[in-house]
Amino acid sequence: MTPILFATSNPHKIEEANETGKKHNINFKQIELPYPEIRDESVEKVAREGAKFVFNKIKKPVIVEDSGIFIDALNNFPGSYSAFVEKKIGNPGILKLLTGEKNRGAKFISAVGFCDAKGIVKTFTGTVYGKISNEIKGTGGFGYDPIFIPENSELTFAENPELKNKISHRKIAVEKFCLFIM
Amino acid sequence: MTPILFATSNPHKIEEANETGKKHNINFKQIELPYPEIRDESVEKVAREGAKFVFNKIKKPVIVEDSGIFIDALNNFPGSYSAFVEKKIGNPGILKLLTGEKNRGAKFISAVGFCDAKGIVKTFTGTVYGKISNEIKGTGGFGYDPIFIPENSELTFAENPELKNKISHRKIAVEKFCLFIM
Repeated sequence: MTPILFATSNPHKIEEANETGKKHNINFKQIELPYPEIRDESVEKVAREGAKFVFNKIKKPVIVEDSGIFIDALNNFPGSYSAFVEKKIGNPGILKLLTGEKNRGAKFISAVGFCDAKGIVKTFTGTVYGKISNEIKGTGGFGYDPIFIPENSELTFAENPELKNKISHRKIAVEKFCLFIM
Repeated sequence: MTPILFATSNPHKIEEANETGKKHNINFKQIELPYPEIRDESVEKVAREGAKFVFNKIKKPVIVEDSGIFIDALNNFPGSYSAFVEKKIGNPGILKLLTGEKNRGAKFISAVGFCDAKGIVKTFTGTVYGKISNEIKGTGGFGYDPIFIPENSELTFAENPELKNKISHRKIAVEKFCLFIM
């Protein structure tokens, strides 16, 4: 099968996607073409508009992926703005915001936006539910992994990256896309 | 002089601009035409791209304005994302993030983007320096006004809205634009 173009500046996303794709005989190939991220609280919309934008430039089918962490007690902050917020206040900032907060529920959501050869966009989402830990723990993964404990686990994603690779939001979204395209 | 079109959904911005403009015999007229806010940490770039976008739709000279609060100890968070962050974590969230922080320096920045009849964009900025209060105080103004104390004052903008109207970042930016256009 022709490789699926994946617009991203992050080669780790490609590795991860290929890990999932190989079961389905699907191969992803990185294309570095920056696209504007719209200001919308939905990662699905960001991925949708990103895919459309890249398709309009290259006129070939393409996927983009956007993801974020949505924290219940913070009205789903930081959501689709996760990368910006992480850079600015980081995990210590999130823990401060949750000081004294009993509800520590949170979820990671990933959205894959796929624009087909006709310019029609579909999105595929993956969600992992869990909670925010009381302290920063673990050295694996990146971003919010050291403060996210998935359901049915006592360890953060950063303490248990093998588990993350099995159940991650991004893996679920890419898997759904593979099942659609194969 | 022909009124200057000001693309905004906020009629208060028009009132405020006209307050400043009348000294220079400049009149602003609201136009409601939503424009995409790009994801950039600079309010200047957001205003610039916004003005270009609206000009391309209406083919007439137009201004847009973007502003935000930039907090020193938080790496200039929330900056151009101020509206989103305020909606999500509000002033209590900002105070939590600054718990135990001695450096409470902050500034408000406003940028007016003006696209002229030839499609050329210029920006005009205004800044007010100050600090973040230890508690939420005052009922005037809106947004971050109840936690922002401007330099040489002991009161927040929300406690002293008259002062805000005199020295605000937005007033300075609009004033600069008026001096340019008159």
